[in-house]
Order: sequence, then structure tokens, then C-alpha cells
Amino acid sequence: LRDNRREELRAEIADLHPADVADLIEQLGHDEREALVGLLRPDFDGEVLSYLNPDLREEIVGLFEPKELAAAVADLDTDDAVDVIEDLDEETRREVLENLPAADRALVQENLTYDEYTAGRLMQRDLVAVPLFWTVGKTIDYVRAASDDLPEDFYDIFVVDPMHRVVGAVPLSRLLRQKRSVRIADIVTEEVDTIPATMDQEEVANLFRQYALVSAPVVDAGGRLIGVITVDDVVHIIDEEAEDDIRKLGGVGDTGVFSGIRDIARSRVWWLAVNLVTAFIASGVISLFEGTISQIVALAVLMPIVASMGGNAGTQTLTVVVRALATRELSSSNALRVVGKEVLVGLINGVVFAVLVGLIAWTWFSPMIGVVIACAMVINLFVAGLFGALLPLGLDKLGVDPAVASAVFLTTVTDVVGFFAFLGLAAAILL
Amino acid sequence: LRDNRREELRAEIADLHPADVADLIEQLGHDEREALVGLLRPDFDGEVLSYLNPDLREEIVGLFEPKELAAAVADLDTDDAVDVIEDLDEETRREVLENLPAADRALVQENLTYDEYTAGRLMQRDLVAVPLFWTVGKTIDYVRAASDDLPEDFYDIFVVDPMHRVVGAVPLSRLLRQKRSVRIADIVTEEVDTIPATMDQEEVANLFRQYALVSAPVVDAGGRLIGVITVDDVVHIIDEEAEDDIRKLGGVGDTGVFSGIRDIARSRVWWLAVNLVTAFIASGVISLFEGTISQIVALAVLMPIVASMGGNAGTQTLTVVVRALATRELSSSNALRVVGKEVLVGLINGVVFAVLVGLIAWTWFSPMIGVVIACAMVINLFVAGLFGALLPLGLDKLGVDPAVASAVFLTTVTDVVGFFAFLGLAAAILL
Repeated sequence: LRDNRREELRAEIADLHPADVADLIEQLGHDEREALVGLLRPDFDGEVLSYLNPDLREEIVGLFEPKELAAAVADLDTDDAVDVIEDLDEETRREVLENLPAADRALVQENLTYDEYTAGRLMQRDLVAVPLFWTVGKTIDYVRAASDDLPEDFYDIFVVDPMHRVVGAVPLSRLLRQKRSVRIADIVTEEVDTIPATMDQEEVANLFRQYALVSAPVVDAGGRLIGVITVDDVVHIIDEEAEDDIRKLGGVGDTGVFSGIRDIARSRVWWLAVNLVTAFIASGVISLFEGTISQIVALAVLMPIVASMGGNAGTQTLTVVVRALATRELSSSNALRVVGKEVLVGLINGVVFAVLVGLIAWTWFSPMIGVVIACAMVINLFVAGLFGALLPLGLDKLGVDPAVASAVFLTTVTDVVGFFAFLGLAAAILL
Repeated sequence: LRDNRREELRAEIADLHPADVADLIEQLGHDEREALVGLLRPDFDGEVLSYLNPDLREEIVGLFEPKELAAAVADLDTDDAVDVIEDLDEETRREVLENLPAADRALVQENLTYDEYTAGRLMQRDLVAVPLFWTVGKTIDYVRAASDDLPEDFYDIFVVDPMHRVVGAVPLSRLLRQKRSVRIADIVTEEVDTIPATMDQEEVANLFRQYALVSAPVVDAGGRLIGVITVDDVVHIIDEEAEDDIRKLGGVGDTGVFSGIRDIARSRVWWLAVNLVTAFIASGVISLFEGTISQIVALAVLMPIVASMGGNAGTQTLTVVVRALATRELSSSNALRVVGKEVLVGLINGVVFAVLVGLIAWTWFSPMIGVVIACAMVINLFVAGLFGALLPLGLDKLGVDPAVASAVFLTTVTDVVGFFAFLGLAAAILL
């Protein structure tokens, strides 16, 4: 595939959807990747860049001259161009911008003035806006005439007043089924959710999800229409946000399978370091009972069971509460009910497993050790349910992302309580 | 809000978007919920049902007579109606179906013949299909004339041959910008991804995500056009699938904050039971070294650190690999590279924390205990990286969902290896 069949390969790839070309690049090893990009370089399709995983995109973009990059990016919609350009280093970004056509450059630069992860960065600048007094016929004629200046795909026509403020929207399918003589004013939906350019992307995704939107107008501080966000961008955001929660819960930083080894190792060190502190706190609790353990070694054998069951039960509660917070199913009005439920579930499962573990420990070691571990289990699963629910709620109240910090605190609590309850009860009852 | 202001409340709610009414119902307690639904009952908007959390929907649906339910559901799109009806018990389902208009009933029943979580269940049956030889003008006239039979919102017009097989699609925005005399054949996109009605919903979501689709045609086994799936349904699926992965990784079943206590407790018991078996296996390993521990109690104090660090490092790798598999970033062609990376990361972080923990144990207890725990850490974090990557890949190969089963196996491995390495090395070196 490398030498004599290059032309064939190039032709085959030219037939592929840019998303599939991006996939192909992602599947290859480092060297093959460079070779393939070299092959495609003369007429590289900018769309491929916007479909690439951001980690890899950085690597690929580095293979191009700023001029080539500008040419590839110039064909993209504003939002996709911004997506590629925002990750470049200062110097390359400046050079690419200089090589863009002046009109594109202005739009891209304007988008870049908004913060990352806001609607302003996501919006597409080309859109269709018409005044309220036009008819369906005039609108269709306008779309036909202005075809070149319009975005390739659009789903709603926005209706604006003379100040260019959004007064409503007309879905294309509604426009199409009306007679030419019907006035826009008679078919417009006036209650349109406008998105301030400064709105956080998570908020944007929630709006789209909540009202099953396909596109929505973006407005500046004065309420003037400046762009549009379409659902395909939102699909990305939803993926990213879910990904983000999963990674935070798993204690993984921003890195993924395409990141470099050093980046991966570094991103995970912090979480492991925090976990180490937690682990040493738990060890500290155990060391309080060294005397007890040296007399009854069975305690050392059984103690990880109490801690691990508590950690797991707590993680279950935590997972549910963190997600319910993220998807807005949980709010202050039903928080207390949820905490109550989780505590009860903790107690129920605590009793179930206390009996089970107690009987095993009873037969394995001695009846009294069975009783001690059973009591410790109930205590720890109760605490796991309580803190598994309260911790994310509390962090959320404090404005801290509950996905990232909860698990650390929680395992600290369940380890400490688990070891303390088990070893403490043992010291009190057995000695 | 309960008594004299009922009419006011009803009027206020009538102005809300159905999604917001659903939210309102979700925020209320059980009794208030029943009161509110009773208030809205006379002209209950079926749309509200399709926005409700499925757990709650079951409860709310139970408050209605089958006839009322049929009336509420009759106004919905086929896919939303199916979504509500599929969860009913046999008897209620039959009664609701009997009370539906005959045409709706036939469509709903047909959708129900497809398996749950397939494209057939998700598709909307109303759609716009035209033959290849029509012109833009004729298509627009048809849409205007047939307006009542068409779906409320649509984004693509599908082009079919005389056998009703899909030959292409025309996005509305493209149709609109063409002159009336242009032939559909000249503007049709022929390479359209058709979705077999039996396709799994996760697959459907991946197609939409991959090609940034807004709607896609669903075909039967003979390739004939039978429905359409739109992106708003896909947003739900993407949410569900991410949710699913998060819950499985967190060891939580299908239950959420709206489930009943007994359901929640039951759904979590299995995971805890599996974890219990794991914990006992780890205990078994410890019990092999009871003699060693009784001589050096410091080992009991430090051993949870080795196991917990291994478990955490492994979970990090696991999270990344499970997600990369779910999002198709990982395939057999780059699997080996990823495993290699993860093992290296495990080794690097293993050495970093080995030094740190070794020094602490050195000063806390004795130099040799420091050396032992350092060696055990390197071994366990190496194993964590290796198995954290290999386990989900292996399960995926075997056709088992890696999100659900990996974590159990992994913690078993890291606990067993952790305890064995630490206590075994201690027994060999220190005694």
C-alpha cells in the first residue's frame, strides 16, 4: 500500500466521507499516519480535521504549513474552523489567520473573543434571517437568490426586527407547506429560546435536549442575532460532557487513548496521589489497633471486606446522584427524598450482607468475630449511603463539580469508618 | 396552590412547554404529583408523557384509564406513542391499542413487532418520499397539498424508486434554494446511509454521530422505506448509552433517583454480592500469610495501600479503554499500541509511587518494609495497567459488554496480586 499504489489509494480515499478518513487516520500508527497525511496533503479536506479526535488533531495539524492549513480551514463553517484554530499555538494561529480570506478571518476572530466552552465559540455565523413582514414566497425567492451566502444546511429560518433582534423562527418544513402568499408573521413561532453567546456549552446542550431542538439562534448582549447553533454540534457536546463525567468518576484526567504516554502518566498521577493520602489515613486508623490485630490475626484477614463493601456501596450511590445532578433530575426540591432513599437502601443492603458475611466469618473464625463484622457492615453501608448522597449534593451546593471530587472523599470516609467500626468493635467486644 | 387557585395553576401550566411540565412533575413528591396529574387530567397532553423519566412515567400512566391514555397518545408521533405503550403491562397495552384510531393502531403495532432498542422501535412512520423524476416545484406543491398527512417537522425529503426502495435524499435547505424547474434527480444525494429496522440503537447513534446526520431513512429487509429516525431521538439514545456505561462502571443497575427503594436495593445487591466474592478471595490470600502478619503487624497496617493504589490505577486504565471501545476509537488495529501505552504508564506511575510509599514506610516502620512495599507497588501498578487494558478488550472480543464485567475482574486481580506481592515478598525477605 505504500509505494506503487499511492494513486489508487488517494483516489479511494477521495471517495470516502471526511469522517471515515478521520477514522482511518486514527486507526494508523504514528509513521503510517504521517505517510497517509503526506499523501493527502496536496488537496487536504479541512472537514477531516474537524472530525479528528482533538489529541490527534494537534499532531496532524503540526504536519502542515500555516498556509496549507489556512486553505484547508477556509472551506469550513465558522464553528468548525474555530474548533481547529483555537487549539493552535499563538504563533501558528496568527499565521493561519493571516492567510485566511479577510471575511472569514473577521468571523473566526470574533468567535475567538468568546470564552472556550461557550455558545460564542460553537456558533455558525452564516444563517438565514428575514423580517416579519415578508411572505413565504419572498422568503423562498430570497433563499434561491442568496444561495451562495447561506450555510450549506439549515433547518430554521429566523425572523428578526429592524434592530436585528430575534422575534421568532420558522422551521423549514413549516415554510415549505405554506402557500407563497402566506405572511411570515402568520406562521412564526414567537417563543424561541435564544442563546446568549456567553452561555456555557453544557447549558446549551441542556436546552437542546430539553426542547428537542434542531437549531437555535445565538444573540449578543443586545439581543441581536449573531449566529446559530445546530444539533450536530450539540451531539458532540453531549458526548463530551458524558465523557467528562465518566473520566472524572474514573479518576482520569483529560487524556484518552490518543494522548502521549507522558501526558497520560502525568494526568493520572494527581488522582493516585490523592488516593495515596486517603490510603495512608486508612492505614493510620488500622495502626491504632495494631495491638488488637497482633492478638487476633483474623481481623487483618477480614478487615478489607468491610472497607471494600462500603466503598462499593458508596460508589453506587455516588454514581446515581452525580448523574442525576448532571442531567438536572435532582434539585433542591427532591434532594432530601433522594438522600432518604439512599440511606434506606444502604441499611437494607447493609443488613443483607451483614447476615451473609457474619455467618461466613462465624464458621471461618469464631461466632463473636461474625457478630463484630456484621455490626461493622451495617454501620459502614449506612454511612456509605448517607455520604454517597450528601457529598455530591454538598459539593454541588459549593459550586465544585461533584463528579471530580466526590469519590476521593467518599472512599476516605468508607475506609476510615469501615476499619474503625470493625477494629474498634473487635477491641471492645473481643478483648 | 392546592384549593382555590386550581384554575389559575391549570392555566399557567397550559402555557408551559410539555418538557417543562414533565420537569415539574418530576420535582414533586408522590402526593403532590398525583394531585397535579389529577388537575391536568381532563385534557392531558400526551407529549408530557414522552418527556417524563421512564421510571416516573410508569407511575403516572397508572393513574389514567386506558381510554384517556389512548386519547393522550393518539396525538403523538408514532415513535413517541410506541415509547409510552411499550412499557405498559399486557392488559393495559391491549386496551389502549383498542382505543386508538385504526390507522395509528396498525402503525404502533407494526413498530412493536421490532425488538426493543432497535431502529424499528425508534422510527417515526410519517415521512415525505417522492419519486426521482419529480421536479422541485412538484415536490413543494405536493408538500403543500398533503400537509396534513406529513410529520410536523421533517428535515430531509427521501427519494424512492417504484418499489419504494430508497435511492437518495434531499435536505430541505437544498430543495428550497433550487428553482422550481430543477429535477429532483439532479440534486439528490445518492449515498444515503439507510438504517435497517433491525439495527441496534447504539449502532444508529454511532451513524448519526459519525456523519452528523439530522434524519435518516429506515428500511425493511427488502430495502423499502418504512420510516425515519430524527436526531432528537438520537440525542436521547446517546444520553442513555453514556448513562448506561456510567452506571455499569459504577456497579449500578437500571435504577435511578426515581426508582422505588426495593427496586434500587435489589438492583444493587448483585454487584455487591460479586464484590463480596472478590473480597473473600482477597481475604483468602491474606489468610495464607497469617503467620507472617502475626510476627510483623506493620504489614496489616500497610497492605491496604498496595491493593487500593492498584485498584485505582487499574480503574483509570479501565475507564479509558471501556470508553474508547464504546466510541469506536479503539479497534483491533490499534489495540496493541494502547495496551503497550497503558502498561508503560502503569510502570512509570508504579515507580513514582513506589519511591514515595517506600520512603514513608521506611521512616514509619523499617527500611526493609519500605523496600518490600516499593517492589509490591511496582508489580501491582504494572499488573493494573496490563489487566486494565486487556480485560475490557478480551471481554469485548468475547461479545460481553466490557463496561459491566471488567471492574469486578480487575479489582479481584489487583487485590490478589497486591496482597500476594506485598505479603509474599515480606515473608520471603523479612522472615
